[in-house]
Amino acid sequence: MSVYEERTRECQRRLRERGASGVVLFPSPNLSYLAGFGEEPGERHLLLFVPAEGDPAFVAPELYADQLREATWVEDLRLWTDVEDPLPLLAETARDLGLDEGELLVDPTMWARFTQDLREAVPDATWGLADAVLGPLRVRKDDAELDALRRAAEVADAAMRDVRDLGADAVGRTETDLARFVEERLVAHGGDGTSFETIVGSGPNGAKPHHHCSDREVRPGDPVVLDFGTRVDGYPSDQTRTVVFEGDPPAGFESVHDVVREAQQAAVDAVEPGVPAEDVDAAAREVIEDAGYGDEFVHRTGHGVGLEVHEEPYVVGGNDRPLEPGMVFSVEPGVYLEGEFGVRVEDLVVVTEDGGERLNHTDRGWRV
Amino acid sequence: MSVYEERTRECQRRLRERGASGVVLFPSPNLSYLAGFGEEPGERHLLLFVPAEGDPAFVAPELYADQLREATWVEDLRLWTDVEDPLPLLAETARDLGLDEGELLVDPTMWARFTQDLREAVPDATWGLADAVLGPLRVRKDDAELDALRRAAEVADAAMRDVRDLGADAVGRTETDLARFVEERLVAHGGDGTSFETIVGSGPNGAKPHHHCSDREVRPGDPVVLDFGTRVDGYPSDQTRTVVFEGDPPAGFESVHDVVREAQQAAVDAVEPGVPAEDVDAAAREVIEDAGYGDEFVHRTGHGVGLEVHEEPYVVGGNDRPLEPGMVFSVEPGVYLEGEFGVRVEDLVVVTEDGGERLNHTDRGWRV
Repeated sequence: MSVYEERTRECQRRLRERGASGVVLFPSPNLSYLAGFGEEPGERHLLLFVPAEGDPAFVAPELYADQLREATWVEDLRLWTDVEDPLPLLAETARDLGLDEGELLVDPTMWARFTQDLREAVPDATWGLADAVLGPLRVRKDDAELDALRRAAEVADAAMRDVRDLGADAVGRTETDLARFVEERLVAHGGDGTSFETIVGSGPNGAKPHHHCSDREVRPGDPVVLDFGTRVDGYPSDQTRTVVFEGDPPAGFESVHDVVREAQQAAVDAVEPGVPAEDVDAAAREVIEDAGYGDEFVHRTGHGVGLEVHEEPYVVGGNDRPLEPGMVFSVEPGVYLEGEFGVRVEDLVVVTEDGGERLNHTDRGWRV
Repeated sequence: MSVYEERTRECQRRLRERGASGVVLFPSPNLSYLAGFGEEPGERHLLLFVPAEGDPAFVAPELYADQLREATWVEDLRLWTDVEDPLPLLAETARDLGLDEGELLVDPTMWARFTQDLREAVPDATWGLADAVLGPLRVRKDDAELDALRRAAEVADAAMRDVRDLGADAVGRTETDLARFVEERLVAHGGDGTSFETIVGSGPNGAKPHHHCSDREVRPGDPVVLDFGTRVDGYPSDQTRTVVFEGDPPAGFESVHDVVREAQQAAVDAVEPGVPAEDVDAAAREVIEDAGYGDEFVHRTGHGVGLEVHEEPYVVGGNDRPLEPGMVFSVEPGVYLEGEFGVRVEDLVVVTEDGGERLNHTDRGWRV
């Protein structure tokens, strides 16, 4: 049984537990997760029907037939061509799979165009969102996912080592130029593009957590925040280091860097199954507040990472969701001194049976 | 009055004509079209309510306040912060604008997450899709839109000339590598990224209309299908050429290429105001069927192009919508011989007062 079929069977178990009749997905991370088929949303009906019992079926445009046969384990393909109206096929498929009544859970990002058609084709169903069953499933990463996440983290680590190796050569290069260098190294080490917009924030630009790379040139003594990611087998990396390529950093930088690293360590140490996600945030925040920088730590400590770069669990005050083995999230405290510099140190962490394990291992210090 | 306000007032006129109470948009091409505000869809409620009469209002996350004030002509901003539940604000806004009953038309790409919330917040409304009023408006391009589309087509033509100039140097390069080359040339000629995933289908891979680039290397004699686009001022290009970089093409290729080009010309010749869109499809299909390849032309002849790469009018059997001046669509017949090769030739065409005019002018032949 493929990992995709296993996930689908688990999804079906949860559907039965909830008493829902099925889920209907369209091109989305959820569809990639259950069918191993990634595609951008488009205007044609490409829907996966997963009943609570029995086998799932695709309703898909004829021109996807070969791709679906190659890429997915789902055998029941109901194809329509551009000259046909897909609505009768939707109705028939729902009826065949026993989905014509009861609660149907649709992909939370499904377009209104398709939810309206589904409501018309399956008038007796009631409607909910598929997060209800897929959320708890996707939040715990299985071995294949952890393997991809580990490899993506290794690629990011290798690229970060290349960045450090630039040493004094980084001085005089622009943020944009360094970002291109990073992206080229990610691909060279086997990564698939970037998983989000690369951040290179030098000097005072490091104080903006979501800085867009500029043409500012790195100067001696500049702290530089480097936050970047790539993908391996569809799974992203996300890590941050703050380094000084040459010369002496500004006054106060060393102690701020120590505080952030200590906060990050405290948060990683707090990771354990059963611990509420907000406690991990609190562990980092306490260290930074005690050092007097509480107001300069302006964002949450982290976010879950999986097929989406931002997903559950969010490591933030107010989220009392208990951590579970297999959850993966970023731990990325930061201190931002406006007009001066910023420091952020980030690793991905997986919750193990008895603690937390970092996926990133490259040097966290500021000296290159 | 800005072009965006003008469009909104015209949308309201059409709402009254239909007897609908209003439209609700979320980040989408429709929102860009009416509000001049482009943004990726995200998990936070960012909705524009346009009543049939009176002024529109945004419900938006507080962190978008500055951007909305700068970018849009809409003055009524109703903001919510991350610690608030936006549902009561949705209900209140609908009530204030007289949208709490009657027919509400939602953005066709609005995520199920938000349509579900709207149905909860405005329980007495009935629901339709905003295409009903915005479709006829957006389908006829105004001068600013045509100008952007022309410039995007010029960029694509220039990049295609660079591809041809590779000549024998393209042999031995992978599809992925050629795609990167194309994308680099699009940007070099002034394009803004890609408007869809670049397709480079070499040899038998060309027989898959929506092929994803692989590591297959181009060999001498390989027909290569190149289908790519970029954007200028938000408007896309979309054109396809099928070429042989070096050596002799496989048996039968030349005659198939001739058939496809003839079919494409026949379809362009059929373009004229008042002609049903399906007649343009039929004109291409007839040529291909007569040549004995009817079963190998597995998709529609084309799709409208505007803020979206695929939009009305669809050039497909069954679409009897009469063409109107200002409509822009692709004309892209193809023949796909499984395991052998594929041929597709595509240009964008604008409907003029008395015919059709191609926006792409670069060589359509297969010899580079």
